[in-house]
Amino acid sequence: MEELVSSIEFQMSLLLFVALGGYLLASRINQSVVIGEILVGVLIGPSLFGLITYTNFVQSIAHLGAIILLFVVGLEFKLKDIFNVKYGIIALVGVIVPWIGGFFIAQAFGYTFQNAIFTGTALTATSIAITANVLREMGQLQSDAAKAIIGAAVIDDILGLLALSVSQQIVSGSISFSSLVLIFLKAIAFFVFGAYIGYTFLSRLIEKVDGSQIARRFPEFVFIFAMMIAFLYAMIAELIHLSAIVGSFLAGMALEGAIVKHGKDYKEGAEYLHIIFASIFFVSLGILVDVHALTPNVIWFVIALTIVAVLTKFIGCAIPAKLQGLSKRDALIVGWGMSPRGEVAMIVALIGLNAGLIQQDIYISLVFMSVLTTIITPIILRNWFYKTPFVD
Amino acid sequence: MEELVSSIEFQMSLLLFVALGGYLLASRINQSVVIGEILVGVLIGPSLFGLITYTNFVQSIAHLGAIILLFVVGLEFKLKDIFNVKYGIIALVGVIVPWIGGFFIAQAFGYTFQNAIFTGTALTATSIAITANVLREMGQLQSDAAKAIIGAAVIDDILGLLALSVSQQIVSGSISFSSLVLIFLKAIAFFVFGAYIGYTFLSRLIEKVDGSQIARRFPEFVFIFAMMIAFLYAMIAELIHLSAIVGSFLAGMALEGAIVKHGKDYKEGAEYLHIIFASIFFVSLGILVDVHALTPNVIWFVIALTIVAVLTKFIGCAIPAKLQGLSKRDALIVGWGMSPRGEVAMIVALIGLNAGLIQQDIYISLVFMSVLTTIITPIILRNWFYKTPFVD
Repeated sequence: MEELVSSIEFQMSLLLFVALGGYLLASRINQSVVIGEILVGVLIGPSLFGLITYTNFVQSIAHLGAIILLFVVGLEFKLKDIFNVKYGIIALVGVIVPWIGGFFIAQAFGYTFQNAIFTGTALTATSIAITANVLREMGQLQSDAAKAIIGAAVIDDILGLLALSVSQQIVSGSISFSSLVLIFLKAIAFFVFGAYIGYTFLSRLIEKVDGSQIARRFPEFVFIFAMMIAFLYAMIAELIHLSAIVGSFLAGMALEGAIVKHGKDYKEGAEYLHIIFASIFFVSLGILVDVHALTPNVIWFVIALTIVAVLTKFIGCAIPAKLQGLSKRDALIVGWGMSPRGEVAMIVALIGLNAGLIQQDIYISLVFMSVLTTIITPIILRNWFYKTPFVD
Repeated sequence: MEELVSSIEFQMSLLLFVALGGYLLASRINQSVVIGEILVGVLIGPSLFGLITYTNFVQSIAHLGAIILLFVVGLEFKLKDIFNVKYGIIALVGVIVPWIGGFFIAQAFGYTFQNAIFTGTALTATSIAITANVLREMGQLQSDAAKAIIGAAVIDDILGLLALSVSQQIVSGSISFSSLVLIFLKAIAFFVFGAYIGYTFLSRLIEKVDGSQIARRFPEFVFIFAMMIAFLYAMIAELIHLSAIVGSFLAGMALEGAIVKHGKDYKEGAEYLHIIFASIFFVSLGILVDVHALTPNVIWFVIALTIVAVLTKFIGCAIPAKLQGLSKRDALIVGWGMSPRGEVAMIVALIGLNAGLIQQDIYISLVFMSVLTTIITPIILRNWFYKTPFVD
């Protein structure tokens, strides 16, 4: 029996079974699938039913899932939509204010310096996937506010991921100002060169490969090629001490424009990989939650952290948006719309937990904060601003 | 550097990069991609360039690949095409004769009893994928001989996989006649019930799920559901001491007929998973080959084994085919057409190696035998029987 439970077949079938349960739950409580999957993950994890633990296999597959997830998200965005000063300012202020808020609230609750750093970092994120999904559900994707939200959320993600890399450096060793500058320079160099090479060379190379004899004979060649680039970028990102997911995200954006005619459509292929592996990633986030760590103290912290998370993002984004000429209503929508932390904060929390940089109480606080901000935003936007019915 | 090489990103990008190399090589030497991928796997493995080793991660991903591969192959076949007495007899004789041949040639070369058992088992297989591909390349898929080959090859695979399970039992412990009978009964029960439940219930359930509200809202639900069934069947197969791949193969056949309209097409999705993970599986087979084990003795054994493999399959299939009324030419085509061992023999070899049941010298002999039979067959069929040009 021991052997069965540790087998790959058992773990895969259970994880997928549970992911299906996550869909059903999400549909029942009218929430995002991500939330459903995390909640059922908590149920089957060691803290409740104990059907599965966070084995090396689950960890590997979840890691693959996170890389594929960010690659697919990257494929949805054009590089040129992102390099926009207006959105950049909203994003920047919307990263700094929550970071400071997160850091101080964690310190106020008596958490250590490194836990406080990670808490701040987790608060910087904005979930592109969840925000975009909420706007799509309300049929508002083409509004000014939506464009500002998505543009700023993308830059936010990049800044948040950079903040993550910096936090990892700060926490894991004595870091000097010069090495901090070096990380930034490396990161900027990676973004500029990665984007440039991806956009001008790899993207064209894919199209060239697609037109070649080999892709006509083996249509799958192009898909393998694209996934190879995703993992290669992830590897390079790790190599320069960025998070692997920054790399796959950049790879996705760089390859967004390549047009494939003969070979298998790599966007479709990546989407299929994403369906299986991102589901497992979200379930695994729940498996890692130990509900026994939810002491009264931690519950108060979760509540305070969630309030800080929503308020700091609201202030940090709504004010710059208003100052840049958006209407008051649009600025308010931007402020609320930026607050779901979603999967990015969870990835930050996961990286911290796996590396032993944060403890279980901070981990679950960050996960619950992500879940709560993600639940609150759609409710506020729907009821206060759009009053539109749920669009399936 | 150590850390980088063991990272998932590095291993995935290298494996996929090498898989691409396998395609290029296969295209250059005008062979099946499987052969190209194995050969480049040998190149990067520990025995030559040592860029990658068979880590737990590679093993897990390759195992996933084998399960997905057999699921996709299963999806190509209808259950009713297989339960045909005529093909069953060709398959049965075509399993028994090579098994005996393999067992005795290994014993003649002084290998131990358990190595001889595994050698016999590896010779029973016929590669559906490779045989079907050869016939497709020659535009002969609808001929009588082709139908006999494919029908018999499918049954052959099932018998071969059963033989594998029995061999594992025989080799790994003292097995009594009654427990052997029990394995057979369990296997038959699994096939009958698995096929029945899959065909009448799960297949209908997928169609029902596809028509439900949940699949309309979340089209990916159906795909996750189908993959869950594949891994569930694999798990049940393991549970009753069959090989996991027997389970996913049966799941594929059972779900072959389900028609999906609203949800994501799970056949397409499984095909995309297969592209990435089966490629890694084939590369990993090469990584496991230690060319230093290729002593003169082993080389002679590979040559003898390959001759035995081709002759026993030829005799075991051509004679029953002729006796059942096929023309002499068709019977000869069936005999030759059944000889590629392909991936099934390699999976058998891999399972034996991973379980410590066979040694490296037998492992590489079986891999080279698979490669050689797979190379020889298309050449003979093309030159002797069809004289048609290569169809891309």
